[in-house]
Amino acid sequence: MQKTITLRTDKKNGLYDITAQVNDLIKASNVRTGIASVYARGSTAAIMIQENWDQSVQNDVITLLNRIVPSGIWEHDHQDNNGDAHLKSGLIGASETIPIIDYRPGLSTWQNIFFCEFDGPREKREITVTIIADE
Amino acid sequence: MQKTITLRTDKKNGLYDITAQVNDLIKASNVRTGIASVYARGSTAAIMIQENWDQSVQNDVITLLNRIVPSGIWEHDHQDNNGDAHLKSGLIGASETIPIIDYRPGLSTWQNIFFCEFDGPREKREITVTIIADE
Amino acid sequence: MQKTITLRTDKKNGLYDITAQVNDLIKASNVRTGIASVYARGSTAAIMIQENWDQSVQNDVITLLNRIVPSGIWEHDHQDNNGDAHLKSGLIGASETIPIIDYRPGLSTWQNIFFCEFDGPREKREITVTIIADE
Repeated sequence: MQKTITLRTDKKNGLYDITAQVNDLIKASNVRTGIASVYARGSTAAIMIQENWDQSVQNDVITLLNRIVPSGIWEHDHQDNNGDAHLKSGLIGASETIPIIDYRPGLSTWQNIFFCEFDGPREKREITVTIIADE
Repeated sequence: MQKTITLRTDKKNGLYDITAQVNDLIKASNVRTGIASVYARGSTAAIMIQENWDQSVQNDVITLLNRIVPSGIWEHDHQDNNGDAHLKSGLIGASETIPIIDYRPGLSTWQNIFFCEFDGPREKREITVTIIADE
Repeated sequence: MQKTITLRTDKKNGLYDITAQVNDLIKASNVRTGIASVYARGSTAAIMIQENWDQSVQNDVITLLNRIVPSGIWEHDHQDNNGDAHLKSGLIGASETIPIIDYRPGLSTWQNIFFCEFDGPREKREITVTIIADE
């Protein structure tokens, strides 16, 4: 089963929890054991597995990436002024593959699935989830 | 086939080679061609493909991550005092997908599969390996 | 279907666009819906999804990684003098998994698939692409 989730983002940089949507797709697939491949369709975005106890880790991710990848100093900024967004995207990566264990995403207690926006706000972001059964 | 490997870690930060365990699972699956998805179940851990000629690269990985992600300066530290561990985990990523070539992991000569601990020691860490055949 | 792409690299650090080759393999597989797992067989290399409008983002990726991972200061340099190459490889990661949507790689308009060389030039680099159908 394959489905594309859409998302509106309201910040320049931000993490958006998509665990519930991925959970629903896995439930709908009726796959007991397998994998769910989660892919961010956008070269200024990414997928990260991260804690969602409160907002703090999400804020820290943005703080860290802004430290590592300052804005305004890149060759690509002469084109689009979003060189930092592409670099953050490349560093975190477009895809994560999550095991499906007993009809559910095999996340640990504190793991959630996040879409990372690095060049928002955007009206429509797309995340494609492909579920493969291990029969 | 899906199996969860367990691991005891004895350091705060450390890389643990799990290539032999993944190798055994692939052998047991009798899958000739396909993929093995390796997933770290823990938001202060990660999976990295890296050289294991000696301990040096593993030490360098820890040194690098401590440089990039200093400890004690994060918003999340007010909760758990392990903000840096979550950030290292998000940067490296929870999953890697390795090809299965002729009944074996398709690693190059120097590639090994490592579990990365960023908030140890822990009695029990879990890594889920899902093997999917390409029939 | 599984196939290994080979590549000659001509720089110490460089990004090489392999989208066309992956595209051709997906077409040849005749898989309508599924995933393509792209894996760099080399512990001084990586796979990155990134923009390819012009050379600028590719140059910026190298500039960024050289800033984050300076050369010549690592324990592993006493062995091989390529400690930085291993660390860049571990940071970016050996694998990306791309959805196959309607017989094509499910990339967004600006996303391309790159092999990242961090210890070139090399006569022969190998990237294994495994295509799994979601039937």
